[in-house]
Amino acid sequence: MRISHSLSLAALLAACLPCALAADKPAFNHGDLAAANSLREHALTDDTSFRLIESLTTEVGPRPAGSAGDKAAVAWAVREMRRQGFANVRTLDVIVPHWVRGEAEFAVISPWPQLMPTLALGGSIGTPPEGVEAEAVMVKDLAALAALPPGTVKDKIVYFSNRMERTRDGSGYGRAVVVRANGPADAAALGATGVVIRSVSTSNNRLPHTGATRYKADVPRIPAFAISNPDADALERQFASGKPVRLRLKSSSRELPTEHSADVIGEIPGTDRANEIVILAAHLDSWDPGVGAIDDGAGVGIMMGAAKLISGLDVKPRRTIRVVLFANEEFGTSGSQLYAGSEQAEPARHVLGLEADFGAGPVWRLTSRVNPAQLPVVEQIFRALAPLKLERGNNEAAGGADLDGLGKLGMAILSPDLDGTNYFDVHHTANDTLLQVDPAALRQSTAAYAMSAWLAAQYPGDWQRVETPKAPKR
Amino acid sequence: MRISHSLSLAALLAACLPCALAADKPAFNHGDLAAANSLREHALTDDTSFRLIESLTTEVGPRPAGSAGDKAAVAWAVREMRRQGFANVRTLDVIVPHWVRGEAEFAVISPWPQLMPTLALGGSIGTPPEGVEAEAVMVKDLAALAALPPGTVKDKIVYFSNRMERTRDGSGYGRAVVVRANGPADAAALGATGVVIRSVSTSNNRLPHTGATRYKADVPRIPAFAISNPDADALERQFASGKPVRLRLKSSSRELPTEHSADVIGEIPGTDRANEIVILAAHLDSWDPGVGAIDDGAGVGIMMGAAKLISGLDVKPRRTIRVVLFANEEFGTSGSQLYAGSEQAEPARHVLGLEADFGAGPVWRLTSRVNPAQLPVVEQIFRALAPLKLERGNNEAAGGADLDGLGKLGMAILSPDLDGTNYFDVHHTANDTLLQVDPAALRQSTAAYAMSAWLAAQYPGDWQRVETPKAPKR
Repeated sequence: MRISHSLSLAALLAACLPCALAADKPAFNHGDLAAANSLREHALTDDTSFRLIESLTTEVGPRPAGSAGDKAAVAWAVREMRRQGFANVRTLDVIVPHWVRGEAEFAVISPWPQLMPTLALGGSIGTPPEGVEAEAVMVKDLAALAALPPGTVKDKIVYFSNRMERTRDGSGYGRAVVVRANGPADAAALGATGVVIRSVSTSNNRLPHTGATRYKADVPRIPAFAISNPDADALERQFASGKPVRLRLKSSSRELPTEHSADVIGEIPGTDRANEIVILAAHLDSWDPGVGAIDDGAGVGIMMGAAKLISGLDVKPRRTIRVVLFANEEFGTSGSQLYAGSEQAEPARHVLGLEADFGAGPVWRLTSRVNPAQLPVVEQIFRALAPLKLERGNNEAAGGADLDGLGKLGMAILSPDLDGTNYFDVHHTANDTLLQVDPAALRQSTAAYAMSAWLAAQYPGDWQRVETPKAPKR
Repeated sequence: MRISHSLSLAALLAACLPCALAADKPAFNHGDLAAANSLREHALTDDTSFRLIESLTTEVGPRPAGSAGDKAAVAWAVREMRRQGFANVRTLDVIVPHWVRGEAEFAVISPWPQLMPTLALGGSIGTPPEGVEAEAVMVKDLAALAALPPGTVKDKIVYFSNRMERTRDGSGYGRAVVVRANGPADAAALGATGVVIRSVSTSNNRLPHTGATRYKADVPRIPAFAISNPDADALERQFASGKPVRLRLKSSSRELPTEHSADVIGEIPGTDRANEIVILAAHLDSWDPGVGAIDDGAGVGIMMGAAKLISGLDVKPRRTIRVVLFANEEFGTSGSQLYAGSEQAEPARHVLGLEADFGAGPVWRLTSRVNPAQLPVVEQIFRALAPLKLERGNNEAAGGADLDGLGKLGMAILSPDLDGTNYFDVHHTANDTLLQVDPAALRQSTAAYAMSAWLAAQYPGDWQRVETPKAPKR
């Protein structure tokens, strides 16, 4: 009988857990655990993370790849890393695409004329100045599109109606976002002239949600847009009238020549195991409708705040803790792809990674992706984090998009999971502002990351490679 | 000793209450009360109100005075009133202003360049195409502006920072909205070149709030804008840097020639007291950023739904129940001002009025403005509404803006007060969509209005004139 990878892993875990617990010798000495407690106590009354997000969103604001804000963000990060006292602060040059949103307009022409706020999907081509006008065909998702009789969407605009589900772990997003990523290319392959999607968002606010779409080399590029949930409902009531729904789409989106951006790197140097790196990853770029407070200002704040707390301990970490703020996560993960393949970044030195790219928290769970032999170590880290009231997750952590490359090289992952229940009310919309960051949740999240990173840096054994990393889920 | 009007009224009420209760003979017969109960039961399972809001927002959408949507709304109301079986459906022609919003842009030029979403205040003049650029002066409110040393805001842009307070009865709005109404004229009188206000809104969403401003004849007109609460916070952080804050404002707002609109009228004819009118007032126009679901689609739905329920009773009302959907409440109350002065509308026949212009509810309180001799009647109406779990308010109801004129003529007011706690999260913003209407709250509100209107129509005595009506509070 062939069993799936996840089943076999679960079986493995079930088999291992009793022996693991039996063999649960203390991995951390008293001083390391006391320092972890001290990190927690300081983190819960410290506002460094919040002040960093405040500064980044106020002084830089939106920073999509290639924009003036992107360059300003790199300068901000270098300056703030130095100000926080990080060592070896430097940049790694990254070539990034430079897509410009321009203006977009979405008009229902019939049966009942209405203008609705819209955003072009990231990377969408523009339209002629007069727009693209056509009758629309409503389908739920990619499968429903594929099931239509041949010719149904030829010269039509395809509207995807699927509404994403609210979940704590972001799985609802993973299931829904395929329409944004592939809908335009799939519809174009069937002869459609444009695509509109219901925002991949849980919010009832009238704020559309952007994010990257992926064209295919062998299929024409067609313009692609998102409308908010209330407008998607209203559009569907127009479809429900039974009358033909005619739409007009306009966009001045365009692709400019590539630009220079940078991964920004700073360190808390290690001591006896300084050659081994524990990486704290977040991304510096953001989408442009909001100011990137939760995506990923929060990750920037958590990681810099956590490293700053560790640098304030009386003892220095054994392994080097490296904060990396990656360029252009949002529109192709250019920064982290370059990093994982760059000798300059020394990817082979990275033994364990943590990523924060899912809002300000709180952290509700600790998942991991470590060599199963080291699950007892994760269990002890989990126990040290107990005052933060986490659940213990599985050993199938995806890490995040920016740890994908290093993860494929076998680097272990420790993942304090940020609570994503309300994240997709705000993510990739104009509502991504500082007012969406809960300072108390942020402090707890910084505590969880600081403690996890510290203990990972202190573990006396070797962090073994993970032999068969699974593909990240998001 | 001179005592204020409200003190004297309170004293009067305190003095009257025991005798009123003693003299509390049943005002309503068994059949009238049974019919009221029947209205409640039907209302709580009826979705007429919701379907009407759905239809208005889907088929018409935004309908600011003078727009194509305004005309479409009048046609919609005539058609729907006839479809609901109302009698004497007709329109009363109203000349309305026709202000066009155009596009607006708000840019912080220094210290840290940022674009922030903005809306011109209703009625604002536009700017030259290149915009108005100047250093900004931050003040809290009108009093703070007036207290500045002479010349402080000459050739500057004035930014008003006051944040409105969340209240159930809307009093926070009343206190804050004076800045929107008078700030531009007051700042212009001191030589300012433009005005920006923190939205008169309780929301943390990045959606600015519009609404009418009032210029003065003897003062230059200057362009006026609102930014959302999160952007107001961000702008104030720029001021907090201590560096000069320079802004650039652009708007293509303009005033076009006046247009024709209409009050739309429909009736449930009375029987033996048919000459007396109980008016159910709401307004048909809306601001344009949203689709006017809560302001005032909800009022339209509640009033038409309530009248429809009354028309479905086995007994006909004694007095005539007249639903009036007024033109242009938002930008000068043209429709209701005309109505109160028009012989054609027969204002003298109006004995009691109810208005719904504060969202979808629920109704949490019953206030009134009746001749004190008739407080016992209101008390009995209140008791009939007891299953809806209301509080009894005072006898100083303002009615609403559209009942102002009739109120000044001495018409009694009965006010089922809609809960406004979250109303100003949505009001006058793009977020005024159908998803903000809670169907259960709407049913309860329709029940309260239907029962109140019905009992007011059945009261066997005369609704006496209110001798000294107070000026409405909002």
